[in-house]
Amino acid sequence: MSAAQFSKREIERVLEVAKQMEPFARKEKTSDLLKGKVLATLFFEPSTRTRFSFETAMLRLGGKVISNYMMMETSSVKKRETLQDTGRVVSAFVDVIAMRHPVAGSVAELAQGATVPVLNAGDGPADHPTQGLLDLFTIHKEFGHFGGLTYGLVGDLKNSRVVHAQCELLKHFGPTGFKPAFICVAPRGLELPAMIKKELKEMGCSIRETDNLEKVIGELDVLSNTRIQEERFATKKEFEKFRGAYSISQKLMKKAKKKMVLIDPLPRVDGQLKTEVDSDPRAKYFEQVTNGVAVRMALMALVLGTHEA
Amino acid sequence: MSAAQFSKREIERVLEVAKQMEPFARKEKTSDLLKGKVLATLFFEPSTRTRFSFETAMLRLGGKVISNYMMMETSSVKKRETLQDTGRVVSAFVDVIAMRHPVAGSVAELAQGATVPVLNAGDGPADHPTQGLLDLFTIHKEFGHFGGLTYGLVGDLKNSRVVHAQCELLKHFGPTGFKPAFICVAPRGLELPAMIKKELKEMGCSIRETDNLEKVIGELDVLSNTRIQEERFATKKEFEKFRGAYSISQKLMKKAKKKMVLIDPLPRVDGQLKTEVDSDPRAKYFEQVTNGVAVRMALMALVLGTHEA
Amino acid sequence: MSAAQFSKREIERVLEVAKQMEPFARKEKTSDLLKGKVLATLFFEPSTRTRFSFETAMLRLGGKVISNYMMMETSSVKKRETLQDTGRVVSAFVDVIAMRHPVAGSVAELAQGATVPVLNAGDGPADHPTQGLLDLFTIHKEFGHFGGLTYGLVGDLKNSRVVHAQCELLKHFGPTGFKPAFICVAPRGLELPAMIKKELKEMGCSIRETDNLEKVIGELDVLSNTRIQEERFATKKEFEKFRGAYSISQKLMKKAKKKMVLIDPLPRVDGQLKTEVDSDPRAKYFEQVTNGVAVRMALMALVLGTHEA
Repeated sequence: MSAAQFSKREIERVLEVAKQMEPFARKEKTSDLLKGKVLATLFFEPSTRTRFSFETAMLRLGGKVISNYMMMETSSVKKRETLQDTGRVVSAFVDVIAMRHPVAGSVAELAQGATVPVLNAGDGPADHPTQGLLDLFTIHKEFGHFGGLTYGLVGDLKNSRVVHAQCELLKHFGPTGFKPAFICVAPRGLELPAMIKKELKEMGCSIRETDNLEKVIGELDVLSNTRIQEERFATKKEFEKFRGAYSISQKLMKKAKKKMVLIDPLPRVDGQLKTEVDSDPRAKYFEQVTNGVAVRMALMALVLGTHEA
Repeated sequence: MSAAQFSKREIERVLEVAKQMEPFARKEKTSDLLKGKVLATLFFEPSTRTRFSFETAMLRLGGKVISNYMMMETSSVKKRETLQDTGRVVSAFVDVIAMRHPVAGSVAELAQGATVPVLNAGDGPADHPTQGLLDLFTIHKEFGHFGGLTYGLVGDLKNSRVVHAQCELLKHFGPTGFKPAFICVAPRGLELPAMIKKELKEMGCSIRETDNLEKVIGELDVLSNTRIQEERFATKKEFEKFRGAYSISQKLMKKAKKKMVLIDPLPRVDGQLKTEVDSDPRAKYFEQVTNGVAVRMALMALVLGTHEA
Repeated sequence: MSAAQFSKREIERVLEVAKQMEPFARKEKTSDLLKGKVLATLFFEPSTRTRFSFETAMLRLGGKVISNYMMMETSSVKKRETLQDTGRVVSAFVDVIAMRHPVAGSVAELAQGATVPVLNAGDGPADHPTQGLLDLFTIHKEFGHFGGLTYGLVGDLKNSRVVHAQCELLKHFGPTGFKPAFICVAPRGLELPAMIKKELKEMGCSIRETDNLEKVIGELDVLSNTRIQEERFATKKEFEKFRGAYSISQKLMKKAKKKMVLIDPLPRVDGQLKTEVDSDPRAKYFEQVTNGVAVRMALMALVLGTHEA
């Protein structure tokens, strides 16, 4: 449902199972683990990438999919059925639901009516837990742990649900002796919300804030980049103030650590993340796509009980 | 194609096979009965519920699905190919077609060109035979028979294709000694069409008409509720005259028989069917969703010849 | 990618494998040849027929499908991700991509980023190689060879990508002793582009041009009909000049050879191809639909390495 709901133990369990799922996600092996199971993807907002990831995960584990990815324009919604009713009805058809919605809290609303597990594929600016988990999986594959690392969060830290999900998950890995440090890099006005900073601190993480990426990039073990999205601003003018605030280029990457991990949820649209960086071995954003399939395989296997939670 | 086309024997056969399909529809068992078969869902009007029901039925019997649920906006239609041509072409791809269309007669038109079986998933205000069959299945599961029951049809009896389909099917169960009685409850102006009343009478069913549900609910074995749909009226003002004419509440249910069956095609949007009634054991509308999958499994198995008709 | 890219040997290999695929395309046998493989259909322009053909081909060979057939209106595109990025991301999910796009060159652009095979399902007025291949397959099934035949290309030869694809493929079958002859039948202004004529001549094919179909139909072994499409013209008025220029009727067919093959890519929308001709054994346009599935099965089997190229 939400990144905040995961305990440390649960996160570790997801990453453990995701690791086992990798050969299937990487198309190296086929699996019939979820044979006979059906997933419904209910997308009230388009997101081909996230939908394909869930559907691929189910299909490559031997399951099947029914899908509505244009739900806004379709009947039950036009007739304004409650999301609870939709949840209850769709539960009669399938074994698990993946849902995306532009309004925060919508997934929880549908889950209230549902009698099968519901996975949050992003709801509004609030949350995007599976993206957060795949980010952690990508980091964990590189370092084997989370503690003691320095995380650079770069971009629109105010509005990015991806960053918020990362924080909600990473905060658990604070108190293990090695306290992770966050360096928040955002233009003035797009800083990380105070509530999330408070939570991180309470869990023993240290936080530094700056608007200058160049000065701090050399300290980072992880650079989590998120673009500044036009749709999060009320007016185009408001957006233009921040456009181009950061640019991840080859030149900048030269100042980074040799083992740094560069993650980004994609898509990229505005040149903040240069294509010249794609071939840099530290750039993991395309590998993240495959990691996302592995994580969603793990989540479905866990909620469907084929693996103990 | 149409509810009117079913003989009594055929209805009984569908219900018999649907009964065998229940364990698969209820996700208790998996089946490979339709392995190798492909269903096309062609929806010229959105209906997630009905489409998901057909697709789930095919997938859970081991078959596969190709789908176009936004046909109005898509190519062959833009180019105004005839439905006969569409039927013939799609027949080359699949083994069975489920089609929904806003215009009455469209499904028959496509079926004319088709060389594979075509199932009517609703065409215009005219017909919705699979919904009618699943309603009968729900009733039959409860009582084991149809004769001698008193049916209360409640709501917009003039425009509801669901009610019309129910009548077309139930009329056959009149002459078996126990004549079913219909009590038609509709606001003035939304009464059951004269032609359907005539048919029911000719088959030996008795009919009573009233606009007062409270007075008659105590006599009913089946309460078939259908909402008064805004889209069936020319103007919003016209609709407002009838809005809220009936309300199925806990208070009202207290006056009903203990073994009454309350069915409704869903979605509910206007409070005619109160959520407080959901937990009443007589409320069968969510169970109907699963029954719908079983009935569509039965229909596909029958038309594809894996069960004798 | 493009019809122009095929060598004679490659075309022959596709037709050979398509021949082996026929029992599966005709639903006479089932196959698990592509079990474990996943196809993505990415349609930036609606074409139910072509999409269904690819999806059916994959499903009937035991594979699975993920699909986005409304890509124009969906997220990654709204955010203007490059097609290269889309290609790279979707490659992480699937084993093969079939793509359609209204703009020429788009498929090549996506393929640049892709790390899995990409099949062109039509891009703009430029190309539609799988349609061309299925046309050749239809002809080959009838005559067993291409050399020595007289091809009549009829309709909008200027804008039809189908005709252009046919020419690019058929030109290879010129120099084998029996030189194929092309009779181009188009209204003035819609003639075959000079470049294509030049290519055909260079490959040893002879070309004749006329605007009178009736006069030449008796000479043809193959009549490749393509409708004059309104959407190819800037104004409705421009289109009206050409509308109804040709009409394939029973009367006209009486003047044709007894063994002539009449092909057409469908859909038909304007009466150029009369329904009265459908029952003529020389009319192969509905059989072409099944041939299209066989050809796409062959292409997927070849690019996925289950058959040697």
